[in-house]
Amino acid sequence: MSTLKSGILRSSMEVGSRYDFRNGPKPLKNTDDLRLILLGTGDAGGVPLYGCKCPACERARFDPRFIRRPSTALVESRGTQVLIDAGLVDLVERFPPGSITAILLTHFHPDHVQGLFHLRWGKGPRIDVGVPPDPEGCADLYKNNGLLKFQRLQEFSPALFGDVRATPVPLMHSKMTFGYCLEAASARIAYLCDTVGLPSDSIEFLKQWQPDCVILDCCYPPLGRKPRNHNDVHTVLESADAIGAKRVILTHVGHELDLWLMDHAGTLPRHVAVGRDGMVIDDRNTEPSR
Amino acid sequence: MSTLKSGILRSSMEVGSRYDFRNGPKPLKNTDDLRLILLGTGDAGGVPLYGCKCPACERARFDPRFIRRPSTALVESRGTQVLIDAGLVDLVERFPPGSITAILLTHFHPDHVQGLFHLRWGKGPRIDVGVPPDPEGCADLYKNNGLLKFQRLQEFSPALFGDVRATPVPLMHSKMTFGYCLEAASARIAYLCDTVGLPSDSIEFLKQWQPDCVILDCCYPPLGRKPRNHNDVHTVLESADAIGAKRVILTHVGHELDLWLMDHAGTLPRHVAVGRDGMVIDDRNTEPSR
Repeated sequence: MSTLKSGILRSSMEVGSRYDFRNGPKPLKNTDDLRLILLGTGDAGGVPLYGCKCPACERARFDPRFIRRPSTALVESRGTQVLIDAGLVDLVERFPPGSITAILLTHFHPDHVQGLFHLRWGKGPRIDVGVPPDPEGCADLYKNNGLLKFQRLQEFSPALFGDVRATPVPLMHSKMTFGYCLEAASARIAYLCDTVGLPSDSIEFLKQWQPDCVILDCCYPPLGRKPRNHNDVHTVLESADAIGAKRVILTHVGHELDLWLMDHAGTLPRHVAVGRDGMVIDDRNTEPSR
Repeated sequence: MSTLKSGILRSSMEVGSRYDFRNGPKPLKNTDDLRLILLGTGDAGGVPLYGCKCPACERARFDPRFIRRPSTALVESRGTQVLIDAGLVDLVERFPPGSITAILLTHFHPDHVQGLFHLRWGKGPRIDVGVPPDPEGCADLYKNNGLLKFQRLQEFSPALFGDVRATPVPLMHSKMTFGYCLEAASARIAYLCDTVGLPSDSIEFLKQWQPDCVILDCCYPPLGRKPRNHNDVHTVLESADAIGAKRVILTHVGHELDLWLMDHAGTLPRHVAVGRDGMVIDDRNTEPSR
């Protein structure tokens, strides 16, 4: 793991890195307070994309550190483990029964819930699954919920999952979608995926809430048109500016963005880093530098 | 691989076996004619079931030959490869672009289609997917079909996929479901899953069609009540008798049936074998022994 004092992760140093909030001589705090691990940072097709021969996909076939699985995060705080989204299809192998405090779903698209189709039939303690109040869900998940105990959350109403307080904020996507403002002790991380831009009430909330770090959907390289359903590099930077984000990490990255980054990673602002599967974001400096 | 002249596969010899139709001194035919590989033989929860400590689940954790993945078959005939169902979540790793002639879906429950959620976003030649005329499909598969070209099939109307002729027969399940009568040269295999019992018109068709081998849904051990949606050992034997099946292989096996089989495998009739992931069913003797 490499730790960069500048807080900027670049090209090869991004891979498997620990993202460090330090950008000054602040003392380290208890790293148990809040930690987020990006288990997956890919879009629905992932990287490598099936059948694609572009240099970014070929690189990921050659070097598994560049693989991007479905966007998923694990939030940890002392004994609490909260999973954000469930698109990884090997959840039953990663998490023994009883090890997950709760799951928070951003929305019900298959690449964010497909790991539940299998997990739900298991035995053991029921799992609380916080979700946006989407009446449809996905396939038969509501009807045949098995182990899962769905709990409809309300926008801007915080809910406690173990030691982690999560406040849902509405996002802009083709299905009802929540981002989550995650808080433990004095550490704050916002996870905002899937979205293109941000609704004005979410912008206002986030400006006030002042997260230490924002994980933001960015699927595409800069496009010549307004992107649909997911941010491109233009709209992600606009959103980051709108909420005054001090630290930004991009997720839900598609292979075309990876291809663009092979030549343009250095053009991103210094407070913006590209997420990687396995990246650890912790609270070594939870106090914002403002 | 072990080959049993009796055509009966028992307990430890079932594992990774080649199922041989020979039960007499008939000459071998061209084994390229028709071959079916059971890639998965499990129910929706699979074996081992997440969190279950029963001896059948513990055995599968200890010895991967007893793992049961979602029920899936690969039908091969010379250059043709037809996949039956798509519940395996690693299809993109198993099948390079262009390697699959077509996919036949029995129905749209998640454990039979979940591998398509990822595969569909890939690049390369489009894949024909023959399906029952279910207006709903599963989640957004119809809406965002990507690589997939859905083709609604009609019951009892044969369709040709490469060298394989497939005739859909209606089954009895909680969602519209087709079994497939698969034929190449003179070899005939019927794949009938998911189902509890069989509709009378399918029984009539199968009695006339006289398959060399029937792959049949059997999820449960003998139950004291009429099973729902899937066969138990009683109803699977009734169905096999009703169509006059000469050879039967059980699939869609749940952990409770595996547990029962640990003590009762020898009680199954001699023409009935229990499927295993990886079992190869070929046409070494495609001529029925009648």
